[in-house]
Amino acid sequence: MVHAIYPGSFDPLHNGHLDVIERISKIYDQVTVAVLDNPLKNTKTFNIDERLTIIQTSVEGLENVKAEKFEGLLVNYVRSQNAQIVVKGLRSVFDFDYELQMAHLNRHVSGDIDTSFMMTSAHWSYVSSTRVKELATYGADISELVPPATLKALKEKFSG
Amino acid sequence: MVHAIYPGSFDPLHNGHLDVIERISKIYDQVTVAVLDNPLKNTKTFNIDERLTIIQTSVEGLENVKAEKFEGLLVNYVRSQNAQIVVKGLRSVFDFDYELQMAHLNRHVSGDIDTSFMMTSAHWSYVSSTRVKELATYGADISELVPPATLKALKEKFSG
Amino acid sequence: MVHAIYPGSFDPLHNGHLDVIERISKIYDQVTVAVLDNPLKNTKTFNIDERLTIIQTSVEGLENVKAEKFEGLLVNYVRSQNAQIVVKGLRSVFDFDYELQMAHLNRHVSGDIDTSFMMTSAHWSYVSSTRVKELATYGADISELVPPATLKALKEKFSG
Amino acid sequence: MVHAIYPGSFDPLHNGHLDVIERISKIYDQVTVAVLDNPLKNTKTFNIDERLTIIQTSVEGLENVKAEKFEGLLVNYVRSQNAQIVVKGLRSVFDFDYELQMAHLNRHVSGDIDTSFMMTSAHWSYVSSTRVKELATYGADISELVPPATLKALKEKFSG
Amino acid sequence: MVHAIYPGSFDPLHNGHLDVIERISKIYDQVTVAVLDNPLKNTKTFNIDERLTIIQTSVEGLENVKAEKFEGLLVNYVRSQNAQIVVKGLRSVFDFDYELQMAHLNRHVSGDIDTSFMMTSAHWSYVSSTRVKELATYGADISELVPPATLKALKEKFSG
Amino acid sequence: MVHAIYPGSFDPLHNGHLDVIERISKIYDQVTVAVLDNPLKNTKTFNIDERLTIIQTSVEGLENVKAEKFEGLLVNYVRSQNAQIVVKGLRSVFDFDYELQMAHLNRHVSGDIDTSFMMTSAHWSYVSSTRVKELATYGADISELVPPATLKALKEKFSG
Repeated sequence: MVHAIYPGSFDPLHNGHLDVIERISKIYDQVTVAVLDNPLKNTKTFNIDERLTIIQTSVEGLENVKAEKFEGLLVNYVRSQNAQIVVKGLRSVFDFDYELQMAHLNRHVSGDIDTSFMMTSAHWSYVSSTRVKELATYGADISELVPPATLKALKEKFSG
Repeated sequence: MVHAIYPGSFDPLHNGHLDVIERISKIYDQVTVAVLDNPLKNTKTFNIDERLTIIQTSVEGLENVKAEKFEGLLVNYVRSQNAQIVVKGLRSVFDFDYELQMAHLNRHVSGDIDTSFMMTSAHWSYVSSTRVKELATYGADISELVPPATLKALKEKFSG
Repeated sequence: MVHAIYPGSFDPLHNGHLDVIERISKIYDQVTVAVLDNPLKNTKTFNIDERLTIIQTSVEGLENVKAEKFEGLLVNYVRSQNAQIVVKGLRSVFDFDYELQMAHLNRHVSGDIDTSFMMTSAHWSYVSSTRVKELATYGADISELVPPATLKALKEKFSG
Repeated sequence: MVHAIYPGSFDPLHNGHLDVIERISKIYDQVTVAVLDNPLKNTKTFNIDERLTIIQTSVEGLENVKAEKFEGLLVNYVRSQNAQIVVKGLRSVFDFDYELQMAHLNRHVSGDIDTSFMMTSAHWSYVSSTRVKELATYGADISELVPPATLKALKEKFSG
Repeated sequence: MVHAIYPGSFDPLHNGHLDVIERISKIYDQVTVAVLDNPLKNTKTFNIDERLTIIQTSVEGLENVKAEKFEGLLVNYVRSQNAQIVVKGLRSVFDFDYELQMAHLNRHVSGDIDTSFMMTSAHWSYVSSTRVKELATYGADISELVPPATLKALKEKFSG
Repeated sequence: MVHAIYPGSFDPLHNGHLDVIERISKIYDQVTVAVLDNPLKNTKTFNIDERLTIIQTSVEGLENVKAEKFEGLLVNYVRSQNAQIVVKGLRSVFDFDYELQMAHLNRHVSGDIDTSFMMTSAHWSYVSSTRVKELATYGADISELVPPATLKALKEKFSG
């Protein structure tokens, strides 16, 4: 049984994330969406519980997918879950450098944990959490860029 | 059960390839190293059977790995094998563009077949089949860059 | 009145090209799709007249667009047409280097001719003439990747 | 008549910007240099009026160019001006990613607004507002990197 | 006699830095590791004296290498040292853009000072000061990524 | 005494090459421009002696620079010359990948030989031997892109 960890900030989840989650749920036996909880960096728009709830609501139909928060080093979390593989999405060539550095470093620190990369669909390649929030701030229609749970959360946050 | 296809020319197999094969054999239940047999492009240093034999010899210790040749479109071969995923190695940011294009195109042509990318180990990031053959031509010591079967085949080819 | 030249090999025209042509036909008063006729490099799949005919058929509905062939230096052709601007499509970051080099060189050789770049739509970012021909060779369905005139020409060429 | 919008922060205008403005003023009938006024991000060296005044002084000789400030989403501003096209400068391959993402996103939000890219001249490819200010802070001679109005404003700001 | 300056923040020195220093000490007659002291940006983990001491301890065996701090523009410092060349390490393609911009700008400001680039060894290509500190914060074993002096300093800083 | 090798095809030498040669002649005690003579690849426009003669004529004023041909592996040639360092020019980010791969490979094969990179001047960043020949073929004025010896050789070759 292969258990894959899909880590990130997910502040908030958008359709590019969800596309990756749906695709890897078909490849791996078990998928955990792991939301980084960094108490020191208090710069997120949504707190850890809001981010988790959005994901949990959005992946309800995917039986082998669950969402959890984690703190500290990713490799420690992966090992605690007895997972075999970390999955990261690559949106463009510029994500590559950071992710390559992290993948090499994670293998150095913890040789038994490997990283697999999935390309974001061309259709979602220009969507990021930052841009989605920027558009929402100005009242643009983002209903095609995010799942319903994110849309609802953004509306509550920005038009309250 | 997840069956992964690792396609390529493998002209010839080097340690960067072998590193990826060993890593994915730990993640997926079954791995097929698929060697492209392109009868129209007769520009390979080793013919399809020589390339296959080198791989088969080199992966002997990996029980869930086998090597096969294929012709035509990769997606057709993947489907014929009932495999779920194509695995490609990324050596540098410059591999990324071609591979991204191919991954998107393969999903367009065959929506149920996805591609997963593995980073080549930093240690092998500068090794390619072309460079290995160039070094072998000039008699340089390449014994740390390729497995024994490739070393033997290169010696026979270039110092015959 | 602004006259823009959109140069290329168009061997053959695909939907990524056509998308750029339609978009620039809305910006500029006149658009000429300029097909490079290089008698020395006889490596094209379609000859210059076949390539021109496909384009002319495909842009029939766009009143301010015409297609022509040209030989020699692009800058000489642009000047002969009294055009103000060259338009190039950028599919990915890797097109950028070549196009940047050519744009700088063209400005050096002919300071009054400038180059403007349009991003290929995300939807077509993975389509290229080379890939389209490869898919057609193996009988894959490419009807969503090329306009009808290209589809017809490819069928005649590859299944004749 | 084609009306092009050239948006940015221009904190402050440098010769790379001015080179793009001069070039696009020859291509398009009307050019508006649109300075983003972001009251929330109060991190600019020059305030919106200082930035506007520098530009207005520097483009005085270009009859079809004017400078204006805008707030909120660029696409909304472009539409309010009945402009057809956004123009962005590309200095290097690394600008490309962000600009590509924004261009795709703007087309998603507002399908009738397209983006055209101009390469910064090789001669100015290494000039940025950040570097210019850094050099000015240390009293380096930047008179060849910026127009007179920027030079004067930087002197007042940093040697006051 | 060729005197080379190797500038940086070195917050703190890691094995990728040290590898470059050792390699250039074999090429150039004299090497100065120049640590930027920026009193305005008080965001470093180690203060200027701590960073200098770590380097001085780590290069003790290299007779033609010394470490010094500098303030202000690098080109002014280089000239004050009668040095001929600035050496920068390139870890990946993404360092390239910033370094290229700075090298061009430095040549503009001070035409007699040139920049030479050394590739970080593949083995250290994924090591950066930021990652090293992040790992140290969480108690990961970084003893293979940094020299002993850095390891000691990090332990004092993070587990005090 | 530092002896640097600047290797390449130089088919033919252009001003971007010459700019690098002049700059490194100020840094290193001795510079050898090493022209690769590959008898197997007979695809050069100028033969090895023509390429050598152009360089020798063009560097006459630089006392510590000489030009030589070499065959086989670069590292073997460098060692035969008792040189300490290989110098390569980087024109753009896309040269980087190939050069990085070669630099790592050369260090693997011959650990005592290192590579140093110089950025091509912004002014020459768009000049390449291929483009220069293409322009010369069509009779464009390239007198500002190449030294007099190259200009003369190109005229003899293309307008004979």
